Amino acid sequence: MLEATWQLIAEVGYRRVRIADIAKRVGTSTGTIHYHFDTKEDVLDAAFRYAVADSRSRSEEAIAGIDDPWERLVALLDAHMPREDLRREWVIWLQLWNEASVRPELRSLNETHYGRWIDLVESIVLDGQERGAFRQIDARAFVMRLLTMMDGAAIQVTMGSIEFRLERVRTLLLGFAREQLLP
Amino acid sequence: MLEATWQLIAEVGYRRVRIADIAKRVGTSTGTIHYHFDTKEDVLDAAFRYAVADSRSRSEEAIAGIDDPWERLVALLDAHMPREDLRREWVIWLQLWNEASVRPELRSLNETHYGRWIDLVESIVLDGQERGAFRQIDARAFVMRLLTMMDGAAIQVTMGSIEFRLERVRTLLLGFAREQLLP
Repeated sequence: MLEATWQLIAEVGYRRVRIADIAKRVGTSTGTIHYHFDTKEDVLDAAFRYAVADSRSRSEEAIAGIDDPWERLVALLDAHMPREDLRREWVIWLQLWNEASVRPELRSLNETHYGRWIDLVESIVLDGQERGAFRQIDARAFVMRLLTMMDGAAIQVTMGSIEFRLERVRTLLLGFAREQLLP
Repeated sequence: MLEATWQLIAEVGYRRVRIADIAKRVGTSTGTIHYHFDTKEDVLDAAFRYAVADSRSRSEEAIAGIDDPWERLVALLDAHMPREDLRREWVIWLQLWNEASVRPELRSLNETHYGRWIDLVESIVLDGQERGAFRQIDARAFVMRLLTMMDGAAIQVTMGSIEFRLERVRTLLLGFAREQLLP
């Protein structure tokens, strides 16, 4: 049910999703949806949480079994690039940020998720530095720069920007990481 | 009327704004609003355009009378940092991107606005390079990296992120620009 809900949010937008639409997509009654969730906002918040969990498990899968720090970093970034098949996920982040900008109670979800995302990428950088594969730059500042750059660029890809095509964005991000990290 | 409308959008969110709310804020009748605009979406699209024009004139004011390329760049970035008094503007961008992700007809507004924003910052960088004040890096790639980083970081500031405080974000952005541009 949560997967169907977040797909619906990504397609038509959080504000346009109605309980009846969710029930129809899941193939159940609106009563069943209401049995599990008190309000429409509860359903949608749960769908956001689902998207966060989905993103996290994709991160883990992406780097499992890779030992080389640079390859780990590239695999992790590639697992979250705004590819066509991940377009829905980026639309979800945009909606979460948008909703949270006027509903402060949603901000803790961003804080937790984004904090863990930074920690994960930083752990790869620190590991690479310990092993002598990466330069001794300020790992935290680098990761904050890299991931905010990724968010801003992903927005432009999601907007269908002519200049920010996926391949160009990938080159900008990996080029930045290479220049900063590799000796 | 447009200023009041975009302020309303920034406060309660695009999806929650009603024609009646706009009329009340402006101090007129809903009939007057409808006389100028066919649909609610027309009003809101016009408000987005107002925000874009407002942002552009703030850019021009920020750099007027400054000759030094580095000082011009810093003044321009400072004029758009997600300061508390510009919070509403960043909320507007988030809403524009969010709406445009499910309403493709709004994307041309982002394309034009963002294109001009990149061009403006790039022109300062190119001028600095011609005058020998900046290093001969790929100006376009640098500006694309810098401005997407600014967007992603501004989102986190707008989310009230503990780690992404305004001063930290300013240091991350200006530190990146300094490292890339200054000899």
